[in-house]
Amino acid sequence: MRKHLIALAALAAPVSAEDKPAPSPQEIVAAAPEADWTAIAASDLLVMDLAPDTRNRPRRVVIQLMPPPFSQGWIGNIRKLASAQWWDGTSVNRVQDNYVVQWGDGEAENKAKAKALPPKLSMVQQSNYTFGPNDSQEVARRRAQMAALAGAEEAIAAVARLGPGPGPEPSKTRSSDPYTKRNLHWSGWPMAIGEFPDDQFWPIHCYAMVGVGRDMPPDTGSGAELYTVIGHAPRHLDRNIALVGRVIEGIEHLSSLPRGTGPLGFYESAEERVAIVSVRLGNEIKADPPLAYEYLSTESKSFAAYAEARANRRDPFFIRPAGGADICNIPVPVRRSSGSR
Amino acid sequence: MRKHLIALAALAAPVSAEDKPAPSPQEIVAAAPEADWTAIAASDLLVMDLAPDTRNRPRRVVIQLMPPPFSQGWIGNIRKLASAQWWDGTSVNRVQDNYVVQWGDGEAENKAKAKALPPKLSMVQQSNYTFGPNDSQEVARRRAQMAALAGAEEAIAAVARLGPGPGPEPSKTRSSDPYTKRNLHWSGWPMAIGEFPDDQFWPIHCYAMVGVGRDMPPDTGSGAELYTVIGHAPRHLDRNIALVGRVIEGIEHLSSLPRGTGPLGFYESAEERVAIVSVRLGNEIKADPPLAYEYLSTESKSFAAYAEARANRRDPFFIRPAGGADICNIPVPVRRSSGSR
Repeated sequence: MRKHLIALAALAAPVSAEDKPAPSPQEIVAAAPEADWTAIAASDLLVMDLAPDTRNRPRRVVIQLMPPPFSQGWIGNIRKLASAQWWDGTSVNRVQDNYVVQWGDGEAENKAKAKALPPKLSMVQQSNYTFGPNDSQEVARRRAQMAALAGAEEAIAAVARLGPGPGPEPSKTRSSDPYTKRNLHWSGWPMAIGEFPDDQFWPIHCYAMVGVGRDMPPDTGSGAELYTVIGHAPRHLDRNIALVGRVIEGIEHLSSLPRGTGPLGFYESAEERVAIVSVRLGNEIKADPPLAYEYLSTESKSFAAYAEARANRRDPFFIRPAGGADICNIPVPVRRSSGSR
Repeated sequence: MRKHLIALAALAAPVSAEDKPAPSPQEIVAAAPEADWTAIAASDLLVMDLAPDTRNRPRRVVIQLMPPPFSQGWIGNIRKLASAQWWDGTSVNRVQDNYVVQWGDGEAENKAKAKALPPKLSMVQQSNYTFGPNDSQEVARRRAQMAALAGAEEAIAAVARLGPGPGPEPSKTRSSDPYTKRNLHWSGWPMAIGEFPDDQFWPIHCYAMVGVGRDMPPDTGSGAELYTVIGHAPRHLDRNIALVGRVIEGIEHLSSLPRGTGPLGFYESAEERVAIVSVRLGNEIKADPPLAYEYLSTESKSFAAYAEARANRRDPFFIRPAGGADICNIPVPVRRSSGSR
């Protein structure tokens, strides 16, 4: 008896001509046309190199920063911090199981030892945790784009059902969400939508999302202390902390670190901290071929089919499709691009 | 500026006499009376000792097995496997980021090398992934207990709202679930409930839940290959694989292991596998004081208050309570018991 596979991919599924298995989500992604992939600008990447591991293997973590209009105050600070090489020599200081990994200045709470921040960082208002009709002109413009997707109840319902699905079978997908009335993927990101007329939008704390550590409110954090999610989506943090991006490569270098044994998972001694060698914007990294990533456009038919298949698994391993999916169980596919474009 | 705390606990919140902060979920749990805690029988524990880590520290993982009527066919097999000391000398073979850690016979797929299973293991039917009116007498009896909780729509709604909350404030808790019509905590476990009249019940793949690896259906696995969840709840596995328990202590020894680089996160070489020294039932473990754990009764007022507070965070760090919670974001509190009872 072989018992190994609790498989996402059906690696060795028996296939006969008359009984072709339904494609898996990965197979749908692999078959997506090039036009359905959207390039990520190198300037929207944040590249963190940790010290090599105990076997001297490199540990690079690549983060994609969020596009406007989201969190641009903090992201502007992050760009300044990277340009000032501020994180070089700082460390990963906190690893709390099923919650977050946090990095920055390990002495931030000690006024005598804390590392000075670069000048001209913005203090961002709490109102920027969400965006909606009361925000700036740019936000309003972007909101109009989103409203075109999500404005009418029918359109919202269609988006909430994650598209009509790839075939003649009607969608059986539920997307109910205990944290908000509705959610959707928008421009590559998981988003929650509030109730009309206070229908603000805000990003969702899914696995691998990156946020800004902060002190007690009304502080909102500068962006110097960052964290990423390494457990079940801590959605109670939505609208309470700024999200600024997500780890798109190398999260295993953070998620597999030893858990801290102090309160909140902080390392109890400086020796346990993991050194950060450097953090740079992607356009400052020299590599051959150049660092280049792309994501599966969340507005594409391929994404709709992928999302529907995530919610209704029909590949041979499964005996009972769920009929729905948590938005955080539909991670946006990201891959290295060939560099040919 | 201190930016460390993206805090579950408000460690250093300013408190004045006239402005007492709302209790955090942990504070509610800490204040729960002894009577709200339920002892876990030592015979329902499965204790797995991994080889010590590179710094020679012990690595013990403690699993609580599910109570009847759930998954007892597989759990019976697991008891036989533990009594036969079958897992001793096997290993952790798979670590897939944001998904599962799996252990058992690393050579299970190689007929020439696979370790023989003990005799008299049961082959369990797929119908045992759920339970409901068509099952055995014992199941029917248990179902009646659950129906008393969840039978009437009003009672269901009350349970779904996770109780009336601890104070005069009306509950604002949503518990919508994209995977099922409703869910609840029952006898210490997260459970989904299907639609009437096919209102089966089944356990939920939350973080740290333990399940039975299997081959392609109709195989359901023997229990010799086990896995635990180390990422966002993979609810698409609900009703497709047997759940048998959860890790209640030491999950960090599994979740922080290096990720496997082979397909599905399997380790590519035998050298990478992590040795299992022994797996025993809790009543076979000699320890002073004896191994003893208890969980916060999910039918207690303390649990209702804790769950409500998880869904509506009012401790000082939070500026905007979510108003709802995913059932997997309301983990059942488990602690070592004093042994005095």
